[in-house]
Amino acid sequence: MAETQGFTGTVLYEDGDHKYIWLGTEQKYSKGVIQTMQYLIIDQGRGVLLDPGGVHLFSRVVAAVSRYISIDKIDHIFFSHQDPDVSSGIALWLGVTKAKVHISSLWTRFLPHFGIVDPARVSGIEDKGGSLKLPSGTELRFLPAHFMHSPGQFNLWDPRSKILFTGDIGAAVFGEGEEVLFVEDFDRHIPLIQGFHTRYIASNSVARKWCDSVSRLDPEMIAPQHGAIYKGASVKRFLDWLSALRCGVDIADQIFGA
Amino acid sequence: MAETQGFTGTVLYEDGDHKYIWLGTEQKYSKGVIQTMQYLIIDQGRGVLLDPGGVHLFSRVVAAVSRYISIDKIDHIFFSHQDPDVSSGIALWLGVTKAKVHISSLWTRFLPHFGIVDPARVSGIEDKGGSLKLPSGTELRFLPAHFMHSPGQFNLWDPRSKILFTGDIGAAVFGEGEEVLFVEDFDRHIPLIQGFHTRYIASNSVARKWCDSVSRLDPEMIAPQHGAIYKGASVKRFLDWLSALRCGVDIADQIFGA
Repeated sequence: MAETQGFTGTVLYEDGDHKYIWLGTEQKYSKGVIQTMQYLIIDQGRGVLLDPGGVHLFSRVVAAVSRYISIDKIDHIFFSHQDPDVSSGIALWLGVTKAKVHISSLWTRFLPHFGIVDPARVSGIEDKGGSLKLPSGTELRFLPAHFMHSPGQFNLWDPRSKILFTGDIGAAVFGEGEEVLFVEDFDRHIPLIQGFHTRYIASNSVARKWCDSVSRLDPEMIAPQHGAIYKGASVKRFLDWLSALRCGVDIADQIFGA
Repeated sequence: MAETQGFTGTVLYEDGDHKYIWLGTEQKYSKGVIQTMQYLIIDQGRGVLLDPGGVHLFSRVVAAVSRYISIDKIDHIFFSHQDPDVSSGIALWLGVTKAKVHISSLWTRFLPHFGIVDPARVSGIEDKGGSLKLPSGTELRFLPAHFMHSPGQFNLWDPRSKILFTGDIGAAVFGEGEEVLFVEDFDRHIPLIQGFHTRYIASNSVARKWCDSVSRLDPEMIAPQHGAIYKGASVKRFLDWLSALRCGVDIADQIFGA
């Protein structure tokens, strides 16, 4: 993708009250570091930030957000799970905003290990999920995505834009200069997602369960934290592919080398 | 346990050349933060540090280590997996030591998100495991423990002390003032480990696989990163209990609330 596009981000959905923004990715490909994508929902001028990432990315993400909204208007930060590339910047984000953090209740007691974290600002999401009402009345839903890979992972469903933010699910690993924002050709995308999903997702049974619940939502886009966004025909192609994937404990003998 | 014991640590194994030390835990119980335990192996005067933990604990663990060995004699740091309570202090530890870091190759590309990390100092462990030769000739083994919970988790087997460091496996959650260093009565310990293992471990099939491989080692002690150390009769009791546990994707309907 063009460097300027990578840097400035793209509006994925917009109406009078509500915007869904892809905040871009690292400007320069960096070998040995997994690339991440951040998203921002703006609803009646107030912000919800999704997986803002680690210490490593903080200044870039602050700059990207501030092109769309002032940082002090971020009311909520959603963490899909506990990994360093998702949530290790928490202490910095709590410092520059008054936002409340939403993460699986499995991880609330682990967050203070990232640094100074006020537990009163962390809201644990129960296993079955929950919701978050925005100023316009639109209600975001925390959708269970446990064991894909994290034992406590949530997706964020926005029923207004029909965009499902999926954290690690759908993640692709690009080679240098190969990055695209949208999956244009699903067959060509498979080699970029095969390795990750086969090795990190816990089992086909849980993948199928997740695919069934996502199919019922009929999303316009599936937006992961790494790789590229699925839209149009590639949404269904991805769900069909993942439903049929043998992975994780299904192939434990192969992984453990027993 | 007595506060002074908690603070100063305990030598679990010792011979002329080789020591295995429990470095203690947080001196004060802190509600809302998961407690962690660190271990140090000293072999012919050189150190291997196990799961030294996050930013939050750095100064305590540095102080605890320095009672036994000078910090610059730590040659290796082992991270069982990528969670914040295990590895978020990596940039600080790389700053005060010349140590090499060992972690699953699944996580090497995620570590830079914790801060400044020189990839040349991180050694990715392949899925099937590996080993690390110490100055005395004793060879530590990286034993696969994937999906329990992390998709890329390793245990560290020390064949000389016969202590198996298990990261999250065996973790117990104590109430205030209930901490013990060793599991004295396994039946009374079950309620403290049941919740964690049922919810975080990916499946009974993988738990059984792990228990079988650990039984073959016949460890003297199983030393987890949280909770208490299993020794003597409690080792076998724990393995039998875990082998029979339905967990994770086995009970997905219950967890997802479907």
